[in-house]
Amino acid sequence: MEQMNLVKEARAGNITAHLQEVSKKEGVNEEFLAERVAEGKVVIPANILRNNIDPAGIGTGLSTKVNANIGTSPRKLDIGGEMEKANVAVKAGADTLMDLSSGGDIRRMRRELLSEIKVPLGTVPIYQAGLKALHERGAVVEMTGEDMFQAIEEQVEEGIDFITVHCGVNMDIVSRINQNQRIIDVASRGGSFLWAWIMKNEKENPLYAEFDRLLDIALAYDVTLSLGDGMRPGSIVDATDGPQVQELVILGELVKRAREAGVQVIVEGPGHVPLDQVASNILLQKRICQEVPFYILGPLVTDSAAGYDHISAAIGGAVGASAGADFLCYVTPAEHISLPDAEQVKEGVVASKIAAHAGDIARGLPAALERDRQISLARKELNWEEMRKCALDPQAMENAMKKEGLGVGDECSMCGEYCAVKIVNECHKGKISTGGN
Amino acid sequence: MEQMNLVKEARAGNITAHLQEVSKKEGVNEEFLAERVAEGKVVIPANILRNNIDPAGIGTGLSTKVNANIGTSPRKLDIGGEMEKANVAVKAGADTLMDLSSGGDIRRMRRELLSEIKVPLGTVPIYQAGLKALHERGAVVEMTGEDMFQAIEEQVEEGIDFITVHCGVNMDIVSRINQNQRIIDVASRGGSFLWAWIMKNEKENPLYAEFDRLLDIALAYDVTLSLGDGMRPGSIVDATDGPQVQELVILGELVKRAREAGVQVIVEGPGHVPLDQVASNILLQKRICQEVPFYILGPLVTDSAAGYDHISAAIGGAVGASAGADFLCYVTPAEHISLPDAEQVKEGVVASKIAAHAGDIARGLPAALERDRQISLARKELNWEEMRKCALDPQAMENAMKKEGLGVGDECSMCGEYCAVKIVNECHKGKISTGGN
Repeated sequence: MEQMNLVKEARAGNITAHLQEVSKKEGVNEEFLAERVAEGKVVIPANILRNNIDPAGIGTGLSTKVNANIGTSPRKLDIGGEMEKANVAVKAGADTLMDLSSGGDIRRMRRELLSEIKVPLGTVPIYQAGLKALHERGAVVEMTGEDMFQAIEEQVEEGIDFITVHCGVNMDIVSRINQNQRIIDVASRGGSFLWAWIMKNEKENPLYAEFDRLLDIALAYDVTLSLGDGMRPGSIVDATDGPQVQELVILGELVKRAREAGVQVIVEGPGHVPLDQVASNILLQKRICQEVPFYILGPLVTDSAAGYDHISAAIGGAVGASAGADFLCYVTPAEHISLPDAEQVKEGVVASKIAAHAGDIARGLPAALERDRQISLARKELNWEEMRKCALDPQAMENAMKKEGLGVGDECSMCGEYCAVKIVNECHKGKISTGGN
Repeated sequence: MEQMNLVKEARAGNITAHLQEVSKKEGVNEEFLAERVAEGKVVIPANILRNNIDPAGIGTGLSTKVNANIGTSPRKLDIGGEMEKANVAVKAGADTLMDLSSGGDIRRMRRELLSEIKVPLGTVPIYQAGLKALHERGAVVEMTGEDMFQAIEEQVEEGIDFITVHCGVNMDIVSRINQNQRIIDVASRGGSFLWAWIMKNEKENPLYAEFDRLLDIALAYDVTLSLGDGMRPGSIVDATDGPQVQELVILGELVKRAREAGVQVIVEGPGHVPLDQVASNILLQKRICQEVPFYILGPLVTDSAAGYDHISAAIGGAVGASAGADFLCYVTPAEHISLPDAEQVKEGVVASKIAAHAGDIARGLPAALERDRQISLARKELNWEEMRKCALDPQAMENAMKKEGLGVGDECSMCGEYCAVKIVNECHKGKISTGGN
């Protein structure tokens, strides 16, 4: 299987099928892409067992990607409902999915996703390890290191393409968190499992202590490691503090080891971050982690937008993407309140797509600019069908066009006959017909 | 009436009732506020005839304000429906309203707003002048200069607090627009009225040529002039181009004249602007217009978000506010498609409030940071009632709490028993009870 490793192939100058596909989708040169993969500045998460994958390139020079989280929770166990959300997310434009299931038959959930969904799939295996410990031994903190590695191995052997591993939550970090004055010590679910585990067991995090074992597993299946930010701030008041930055420094060291081993790796980032700190957070990650792809979770630029956190995250995500973040984890309007329903999943994906696209425009990506040029040309012509085709959510446009009865040449009901575009177009036509007055 | 002029009072060091109220609301010193008003860096729009106004301060050192547009259109004439939207907008937190009515009995609409609504009210009087010309003489471009001034006088005499006047759309600008390669020549409705008027009549814009007459009217009723950006870009491809910047230069000259006359004045800004150009646009306006309050319309950071333009505008608005914009005009999900319904009005206001708040946090406004600190403390305690109180939309939180059955101490259905906050809190408690392990 060794020759299937993407980084090794790229370092040898070989253009694999996934590389070819991504280069076509992105409109970038194959050699450029292979060089970025060889350096670790671009990843293409794809387990060697996945035959039906629609690959996505994430990193320097490529369009910003969007991930949607789905999955059961202890209170909402409906696998069918989560499969529906997965399909809704992909249809709305999610480039990858993560299955964060923590309730009911999470193996079945994962297997259904793997057989039905074509985009790269990620998981957080520590959830499975924690659940097992809770059921078998009465508490999440009763996990063993073996439980953690078993969960990882099982999921990787099933074909999962990328996994979040909170390797940076180590004993040093935990002791420092306890000396800090954070409002919310740990906001990450996986981070809290490991934080509590270290507190209880007074032992080093196995995912940190045995990082080489993790690298071996990842390498065997060409799985991409997504180094989780267990210490991400859970309030803007806690942003960019010591524990957050110290974890980033540790992750930067692990990135170096992963790259040396030829393992694809990305780093996860905040979180809750005031708008004026977002760009600095991207710079910090890009410097400390040697320009590895950055996967940001929001960031939410305020804590007060409950019910509308997709908007708070779109603001942070757009600024993050324009500053160099490569991969946005969506946030839905249900964040901080409940598991989202299918409609909220769609809203979350679209909000993230808007943020990603706004970032791509700001970074000057030709395809992003061209889309806006095309929709603007259509708007000038009041050509609704062309506007629909260019829109980030064509379905929303189609619904609106039907409801409003909009056809080519019609003005919308906001201005009606006083439409600025129509007035100017008619004036130009008049000018031409009367000989240039 | 002359002694009622806010700028003159402030220059004389007198603290008026409106100044007192705004200073209390904003938590800023009265003398600081009076100085800013005297310099023209803060305005408090309030017609001397409005007795029942809830005044809002807009400008340097104050929280970012949000305006909501309501009003009939030629296709939607329902005054009752627009009054409902006005009330929805104020309830959702709009600091001011603009009545952009252009259909049906627009006088009645305006008078109902003036008698029922307490926030400052703005209008665009050129619409009334254009409508009159269309009905009496068959075309908007058949307006006379007298029509324009009559509409302004009528609305000001009724008690309107601020008016948009497109004084910068002059003959020079129109000739330059016609030499430029914009995709959308004019996106502003009022701007298109005047552009077409100049093209047809080959005469200077009366609102530019007779600006002193406008100043006299404004002064008599202490009405605030909002200098409209008739040349704002209607596509991100057209942003920050010659015509846009030239109009801004002209508006900067007019700001100087308004200040000399003791007239309160603000400047309107774009529009459609790529994210990487937003902060520069704010800097440009603040420099060219001598730090006069900046009222931005979005900006939309992509043209492709039809159906979700409130999100596109929230991204641009947040970055704009963090860079120094003072006043955000809301954008609803219906923008570019139709007149919004009441629900869309609410969504637009909330999205703009999020943007304004994110900007205020980024600028370090103590009250904005304190709100987020409070909601974060409540989140740590899983105190849903406190979270509801701090939320930008408490109603949305209340609905969600009811739906999910959330009470103090409950985790939400996303993580259930695996709630990071709960795990950490319990671990801390355990630590204390077992003597500090």
